[in-house]
Amino acid sequence: MTAVKFLQRYLPILEWGRTYNRSVLADDALAALIVTIMLIPQSLAYALLAGLPMEMGLYASILPLVAYALFGTSRALAVGPVAVVSLMTAASVGNMALQGTAEYAFAAMTLAFLSGLILLATGLFRLGFLANFLSHPVIAGFITASGLLIASSQLKHVLGIPASGHTLVEILHSLASNAADTNPVTLVIGLASIVFLFWVRKGLKPLLRRFGLSDGLCDVLAKAGPVLAVAVTTVVTWGFGLDGKGVAIVGAVPQGLPPVTIPSFDLDLWTSLAGSAVLISIIGFVESVSVAQTLAAKKRQRIVPDQELIGLGASNIASSLTGGYPVTGGFARSVVNFDAGAQTPAAGAFTAVGILLAALLLTPLLYFLPKATLAATIIVAVLSLVDFSILRFTWGYSKADFAAVAATILLTLGFGVEVGMSVGVGLSILLFLYRTSRPHIAEVGCVPGTQHFRNINRHKVLTDPAVLTIRVDESLYFANARYLEDYILDRVVGDEGLRHVILMCSAVNEIDSSALESLEAINHRLQDMGIRLHLSEVKGPVMDRLQRTDFLSELSGEVFLSQYHAMTAMSEVCGKSGKQGKKLVDAAD
Amino acid sequence: MTAVKFLQRYLPILEWGRTYNRSVLADDALAALIVTIMLIPQSLAYALLAGLPMEMGLYASILPLVAYALFGTSRALAVGPVAVVSLMTAASVGNMALQGTAEYAFAAMTLAFLSGLILLATGLFRLGFLANFLSHPVIAGFITASGLLIASSQLKHVLGIPASGHTLVEILHSLASNAADTNPVTLVIGLASIVFLFWVRKGLKPLLRRFGLSDGLCDVLAKAGPVLAVAVTTVVTWGFGLDGKGVAIVGAVPQGLPPVTIPSFDLDLWTSLAGSAVLISIIGFVESVSVAQTLAAKKRQRIVPDQELIGLGASNIASSLTGGYPVTGGFARSVVNFDAGAQTPAAGAFTAVGILLAALLLTPLLYFLPKATLAATIIVAVLSLVDFSILRFTWGYSKADFAAVAATILLTLGFGVEVGMSVGVGLSILLFLYRTSRPHIAEVGCVPGTQHFRNINRHKVLTDPAVLTIRVDESLYFANARYLEDYILDRVVGDEGLRHVILMCSAVNEIDSSALESLEAINHRLQDMGIRLHLSEVKGPVMDRLQRTDFLSELSGEVFLSQYHAMTAMSEVCGKSGKQGKKLVDAAD
Repeated sequence: MTAVKFLQRYLPILEWGRTYNRSVLADDALAALIVTIMLIPQSLAYALLAGLPMEMGLYASILPLVAYALFGTSRALAVGPVAVVSLMTAASVGNMALQGTAEYAFAAMTLAFLSGLILLATGLFRLGFLANFLSHPVIAGFITASGLLIASSQLKHVLGIPASGHTLVEILHSLASNAADTNPVTLVIGLASIVFLFWVRKGLKPLLRRFGLSDGLCDVLAKAGPVLAVAVTTVVTWGFGLDGKGVAIVGAVPQGLPPVTIPSFDLDLWTSLAGSAVLISIIGFVESVSVAQTLAAKKRQRIVPDQELIGLGASNIASSLTGGYPVTGGFARSVVNFDAGAQTPAAGAFTAVGILLAALLLTPLLYFLPKATLAATIIVAVLSLVDFSILRFTWGYSKADFAAVAATILLTLGFGVEVGMSVGVGLSILLFLYRTSRPHIAEVGCVPGTQHFRNINRHKVLTDPAVLTIRVDESLYFANARYLEDYILDRVVGDEGLRHVILMCSAVNEIDSSALESLEAINHRLQDMGIRLHLSEVKGPVMDRLQRTDFLSELSGEVFLSQYHAMTAMSEVCGKSGKQGKKLVDAAD
Repeated sequence: MTAVKFLQRYLPILEWGRTYNRSVLADDALAALIVTIMLIPQSLAYALLAGLPMEMGLYASILPLVAYALFGTSRALAVGPVAVVSLMTAASVGNMALQGTAEYAFAAMTLAFLSGLILLATGLFRLGFLANFLSHPVIAGFITASGLLIASSQLKHVLGIPASGHTLVEILHSLASNAADTNPVTLVIGLASIVFLFWVRKGLKPLLRRFGLSDGLCDVLAKAGPVLAVAVTTVVTWGFGLDGKGVAIVGAVPQGLPPVTIPSFDLDLWTSLAGSAVLISIIGFVESVSVAQTLAAKKRQRIVPDQELIGLGASNIASSLTGGYPVTGGFARSVVNFDAGAQTPAAGAFTAVGILLAALLLTPLLYFLPKATLAATIIVAVLSLVDFSILRFTWGYSKADFAAVAATILLTLGFGVEVGMSVGVGLSILLFLYRTSRPHIAEVGCVPGTQHFRNINRHKVLTDPAVLTIRVDESLYFANARYLEDYILDRVVGDEGLRHVILMCSAVNEIDSSALESLEAINHRLQDMGIRLHLSEVKGPVMDRLQRTDFLSELSGEVFLSQYHAMTAMSEVCGKSGKQGKKLVDAAD
């Protein structure tokens, strides 16, 4: 690889940057403006969710976006703090330190650094495929359960009471025991914001369209709903002095550039954060890459998953070095970015400038912003993630998938995000292994007058008592090798008239060493019983491998190109169509 | 289930016991006599290997055999202490207590109890299939490495020096640093025993046969070699007073019935032993069930794996209650039992009587038995387990299997049995998942003049630039869903003439929810590009499931019964054979 190619591979900006012109810049700048307006309240709200000072949400939305613009391959992905990762940060860092302490913030920065290193290393070693081991239903279940956890965790701000906990039970119990102290003014602000924001989502767009506004403009205005809620409730709180009536406000947010920070290099802290960093990296990457892929496909563009890992890794390291916390590509804001016309990752860099200006200039205006408003924006945003339809769907489609989803949801709600996610992933892998360890095995017979062989339990077929044909609908490997052994020997023991067993291998994509040993054992045991073992329809690559072993020379029977060929060689039952059949088999040779 | 059936299922003795007669008894008794002679030195030697008092080896060979005779289903399996499980016991218990202390022996008994509970529960819940997740090469590698570890751990007795360690490096280092203290008399006894025992294995049989003895008798005499070595070296040591010259002897072994013991119920001890108990149970069960199955098949008998678990569980619990340690079915002694004519599990019970008599009467005779002789019997026995051919075989047959074996061997030697075994199992599962996550995908075309479709890279086939046919040789599930997505989209992007993509599903045995989502995504993205997605040769059970979803109605293309059908519907390239082909497809309908 030449130096130029190397740079082009790891710095995608070198590719799209070359064709950058004024028209693209205008598109990117407009998209950036709209995303900035959306991102300011989000950044504050997610920092609140993560239990961090508000300004850290803003800091996490500045340099990380520039880093992604340099290293990322998606043209539309908008990076920054997101709900689920903020929740996971709170769950992880909450074990190390108390919310509000400097240690807590420091641990969150270190978590971003670790997660960045993990993402970067995974990308450099091209291990992005590991994310494929998360099944979609498990992710869907996890996101739904996280949404519920997040919404319930924000109720305390709407009620104006203290509450804590990392599981649904803990949170609800904590809320219930403090419910008597509910602050009525806070509750009014919170509920009004929630109702308003839901209305903006559902009712505003039709209304605006009736006024003759274009569809795109309606969408953009609807996304500005949170900004309006923030502005109105801030003004009301300031005007009526509601902070004196028990309404919790954001208060002083430091004004200025993001600080330069150095994450901890304490081995103990790294050890305790490592597991969480892995989980955050996985979820962050999966969420991000799904959005990026969906948006890229719409323009027939491609993203490079391993380079995405590098982009996200760089973002998180940038976040940790400038007072931020873990970030990833957000779903809602990326869609807004895309719809608003973003053409290149430069839109992200321009958004960073927007947030930087907000950090420099706007923070004094946020002093009287009620926390209840921020909580309302979080609740409304995450409730759109909650979708139990995956339960109904998987129940009808695949009970194994249903089990994985149900376990993920219940464990996430009952034991927190880390347990829920880990068990969900483990369970979906175990269930897959379990299914392949008990493959579908059919005894087949000849469909009269044809060369086709079908399941004797489903079709009217011809069989010969001296010949047993078994079709295994799965690759043969260690986990199902003994199952096949048991199946065949159970079937054969006591069947005195049997002389031939044919194993029809049309669906066998691989035979590993263990399965080969099992086939050898089956061959020898059948031989001991005076029964010959034959194979039919063995695939090319499988046959190539078998030819490198002694198995074929030890096989008591033969290997036939087709099942029809095999059957006619040792039985008369397919006889009627025998002549025509023979010809066809020749043609297949 | 009636009470009778219930009893018959869980007490196989009720079945074979009914037809028990004098002739069977004679056969069983003879087999028992031969196994007893073989088992006495083995029991002592394996207790030495496990670091336990000699009598515990004998105790582990009495009641456990009776328990297995009641609950086991194999007619030939001989249960008792075995080499690998003894090594694993030493590795596990060695972490809890010092060898020679009462705590050490107590922990070994508790380990047997825990392992018994695990086996019993696994059998009652019919989870015996879990053992299938051990790939044969991993087991082979583990046994080979364990054999080496065991042999090296016994060298200290042959040299007459102290040494310790659970890994090859530790053991060899420990031996090397004490080598200067080697006791020459001990070394002579040890080496002489080793040479003699090897000669018995290789050279004695041909010699005896030359004297006209029958093959069977030769085998039995060869198995008595260790007894002869024990007798001769004991007499020599006693006659020449070699114990006074530094030869370590067995010394006083308590004479009498096995004691009644109660294992520990201390939760801390259970927690620390749990992992080892699981590993010992797995290895014990796998070793035992392989032997039992091999021997049963020779007589067209069947064993019931879940009932075997119950039998082995009962054995281990019996062992823990009578001063023994973990036991399982041994390979060598079961073969001897089988060859000597054992007809029923009663042979095991008779062996128990033999060992009981030895414990009652023979132990004083063992006072002067040199430990070097016992070590020699262990070394010669386990070196027959060492077989590196699995490395050569898997290297040629499957690199993934090779990687799993090599890792298992190296880690077992370098980090001990527990690490080696755990990583081996984990690695073989990961490698399987990895392979299925990157399935073989072929682009196929029509073999001229036929209805067959083959890989365009392997065969001369006809294709149409407007039609792309992709055959995936693997079930579609979460781990390969995105791979397929990436593959198809990468292939399609930029191919402007393309109008149809056909996914040929002849080797797809399952489509899980994640894969279904990916297919939906592929369908939508292709649609965005103006390309239709079709399926062909979808299997019955897969189609049944798809019909329960919206996928088929959303599919931009069609589902074809055969690939030929699909191709002729949208292209002329298979035209030449079109007419004949059509007829055949009709026949397949």
